[in-house]
Amino acid sequence: MSEDRLIVFDTTLRDGEQSPGASMNLAEKLEIAHALADLGVDVIEAGFPIASPGDFEAVQAIAQEVEGPVICGLARCNPDDIDRAWEAVRDSARPRIHVFLATSAIHREFKLKMDKGEIVRRAVEGVQRARGYCDNIEFSPEDAARTELDFLAEVVERAIEAGATTVNIPDTVGYAMPSQYAAAIRHLKQTVRGIGNVVISVHCHDDLGLAVANSLAALTEGARQVECTINGLGERAGNCALEEIVMAVRTRGDYFGLKTGINTRRLYPTSRLVSRVTGIGVQRNKAIVGQNAFAHEAGIHQDGMLKERTTYEIMNPEEVGLPRTELVLGKHSGRHALRQRVRDLGYHLDDAQLQRVFEGFKALADRKKNIYDADIEALAEAQIHEGPALWTLESFHSSAGTGTMPTAGVCLRHADGHKAQDAACGDGPVDAVFKTIERITGVTVHVRDYQVRSVTVGEDAQGEASIEAEHNGRIFRGRAVSTDILEASAMAFVEAINRTALRRQPRLNPQAETVAAT
Amino acid sequence: MSEDRLIVFDTTLRDGEQSPGASMNLAEKLEIAHALADLGVDVIEAGFPIASPGDFEAVQAIAQEVEGPVICGLARCNPDDIDRAWEAVRDSARPRIHVFLATSAIHREFKLKMDKGEIVRRAVEGVQRARGYCDNIEFSPEDAARTELDFLAEVVERAIEAGATTVNIPDTVGYAMPSQYAAAIRHLKQTVRGIGNVVISVHCHDDLGLAVANSLAALTEGARQVECTINGLGERAGNCALEEIVMAVRTRGDYFGLKTGINTRRLYPTSRLVSRVTGIGVQRNKAIVGQNAFAHEAGIHQDGMLKERTTYEIMNPEEVGLPRTELVLGKHSGRHALRQRVRDLGYHLDDAQLQRVFEGFKALADRKKNIYDADIEALAEAQIHEGPALWTLESFHSSAGTGTMPTAGVCLRHADGHKAQDAACGDGPVDAVFKTIERITGVTVHVRDYQVRSVTVGEDAQGEASIEAEHNGRIFRGRAVSTDILEASAMAFVEAINRTALRRQPRLNPQAETVAAT
Repeated sequence: MSEDRLIVFDTTLRDGEQSPGASMNLAEKLEIAHALADLGVDVIEAGFPIASPGDFEAVQAIAQEVEGPVICGLARCNPDDIDRAWEAVRDSARPRIHVFLATSAIHREFKLKMDKGEIVRRAVEGVQRARGYCDNIEFSPEDAARTELDFLAEVVERAIEAGATTVNIPDTVGYAMPSQYAAAIRHLKQTVRGIGNVVISVHCHDDLGLAVANSLAALTEGARQVECTINGLGERAGNCALEEIVMAVRTRGDYFGLKTGINTRRLYPTSRLVSRVTGIGVQRNKAIVGQNAFAHEAGIHQDGMLKERTTYEIMNPEEVGLPRTELVLGKHSGRHALRQRVRDLGYHLDDAQLQRVFEGFKALADRKKNIYDADIEALAEAQIHEGPALWTLESFHSSAGTGTMPTAGVCLRHADGHKAQDAACGDGPVDAVFKTIERITGVTVHVRDYQVRSVTVGEDAQGEASIEAEHNGRIFRGRAVSTDILEASAMAFVEAINRTALRRQPRLNPQAETVAAT
Repeated sequence: MSEDRLIVFDTTLRDGEQSPGASMNLAEKLEIAHALADLGVDVIEAGFPIASPGDFEAVQAIAQEVEGPVICGLARCNPDDIDRAWEAVRDSARPRIHVFLATSAIHREFKLKMDKGEIVRRAVEGVQRARGYCDNIEFSPEDAARTELDFLAEVVERAIEAGATTVNIPDTVGYAMPSQYAAAIRHLKQTVRGIGNVVISVHCHDDLGLAVANSLAALTEGARQVECTINGLGERAGNCALEEIVMAVRTRGDYFGLKTGINTRRLYPTSRLVSRVTGIGVQRNKAIVGQNAFAHEAGIHQDGMLKERTTYEIMNPEEVGLPRTELVLGKHSGRHALRQRVRDLGYHLDDAQLQRVFEGFKALADRKKNIYDADIEALAEAQIHEGPALWTLESFHSSAGTGTMPTAGVCLRHADGHKAQDAACGDGPVDAVFKTIERITGVTVHVRDYQVRSVTVGEDAQGEASIEAEHNGRIFRGRAVSTDILEASAMAFVEAINRTALRRQPRLNPQAETVAAT
């Protein structure tokens, strides 16, 4: 790649998915991977294949299906991890293995219990083993930003000798200051033999709100790959937000002189998709993709008062794909228009799924005058979230009011065909519905979070109910949309209950485990 | 103040309140001002007094009531603004007037239609007039970061000669890069006569995600006041987040060598208070105060696995006031314990309000086993939100279910004593309730946003309904809490309807208006 090309490495599916509450199923991960390819990212870190069979399966499916970007799998510096990562990514036209090993004193002492010599030996062995499989190898000295500079330079140099083609310098805990981080990159650039032949990458966390600033500072010293996530998802306060770094580099092209391969008009739709799939929203005052990012208190209804847009706006909302209006389709819109809109919104559905969306669309158009993007998103979401449904909501009734006891009656259909119905009281109508469903299914959960939000506006608005329920120490999510929020709540609760039956095997977290003895 | 003391200037009530959807009433502003004083901010920018009678009244009430911080009012560089700002803040023991005037070429040409000479003249006159009232004067050249450096230096120097004691260098549109912004501060520090005798301040916006980084970069060049807001609220993508800059300066004390007067243990409660009062939430992956900021995917239930906390955490959650557990009070807790808890949560209620909270608490404790912080917050909120209620919910009933038409019956009591009841159908039970209330009150609104979220956890969780409704081009919010979300929705809708009756006069936005001719 040329000197002025910035490689965008997206880790929404790996570091982003490690956010508490953000875990995704296979279909959801594939959906996001396709959207990232449409967005134009250069590398997709698809997961940590050894973490669980589900993680492996997702990385492999993405490697097989998603064309365009490099598909990367994460591995600790040990043979099992690396072999498994290679198995997962080998079907991609452009596979990469990403091996990592912590190098900071605190990680050496407390997590790994290894001395410097041992760290170097393991790093070299890991990179060499990975290189035996594949030409595209990234090496990360974890917690690099807190590692002694001389030792960091030594490890990086040895990893390059061993065959690493990208060296990533992570600020794993979000501790760095931009000038210090830039100085570290400069030091490596000046002292490490062979560094001119590899790509220097950065991976910053936002614990002090500096992930984007640290990444940008590194670019001015020659880093040419940035690791980031949609909406800045990731462990703790998250990673560098893709949309922010991309728009900073673009808006301040005069300063950075860099280009990315990102189609910026896909930024907003991709942000929406990720926030809907993960259930982790974006705050209103979030840069680039927040609801207020391009809105002014006085400006909303008073655009005409601003004599020149650029007095208060340094970016054009259309540049990031913010829709001018969300009203798109009506009763008479055809299948082709719907297919195109689904695609524009970032969904990749097959013909059978599209057919179901179309049927849902026609049914909705009978009830609703205006069909908004959010309505279509809800219909498309229902396709990708769909798992094997043990129980399905057949019908419900609920009654509540001042001075009366809230009651609900629910009828569920089991996958084996039989129907079951029951009734219960509750603190409110929603609680009554939940208690009835628990009574029918025999599964009791602890509701940790329950939310309803209008996904469209107007008289015939649809509400989306989302539930986070705990069952045997694990979290299960459920979501559903309806014009009746009680119905949406019932369907979401049934979905969460269904998911408890599909409980996956325990899963490794790359940061919680030491390297297995070789 | 000593060289190593950083002045924290909070503008949540001015720039933060300019966020679309964040406008607050008098009681809400007072509540936040008290919380900011508890937090230990040095300066509270309480508002823009000339914007509307409501804004004036809020700044004046804060100046009269809130002790400790400097109370500051914003004014454009014209006599009316400055006179009004002085009237509003003069009752404070420590008043400040903050005058501003745009200096960048684009603002001069398109917004102000003034040449450089005219800008300097107006700035000097403005500062002089303000200085005639008060010794503590801040001057801001708006859009300083896009202003020619030489002209900026000239304006700043003339403002200092005219009597400004703090000069603020705003990056109004969030365009600056940290190294450039630092260079601008350095240039001013080196070239402006008299700058050693005043405080240099920074005010950064987050359009490219760099508000905190830019502010920090300026500190290394000698800026000693930072303008910021709780949760980073503010126009568009918002301002520098107070909690982030304070914790960056504290966590990296080795780098900055600066101290603030902030009691960091009040950061989390203050963030919660502001997000509840404004209705603008904080995203899960927000630094410092987000729900995930101190949570690890693997770590939540596996703390024991981390051999040393600092391997992945650079701050201690207790340092920012994150509660270990939210379960605090039960049925037998007394008035004193409740009063203390209300205070710890950041509320400043008078005895009558506390009495009503206590009564609500006792009633709730009869229905709920465990009373959480969020329950108490909801009770306290109800006190500060309370406005003159034209209509009150007397009773309601609602019925919905598969294949039946959702219906609701509602009875409201008018302030004049009469009761009115009616019924309506809807797309769902909530819609039926809303339609009934519109029918009774005769007020029709357009619901722009409707949300319900559980504010506590467990079987007996309470739900908070919040509504954003548009009426004659203005936005009105309503919120209410109940274990029955239909009841909460009905009360929130009635609150929004009541607020339409109290429509305030039109209000100026400092950024949307040119300077009135003098």
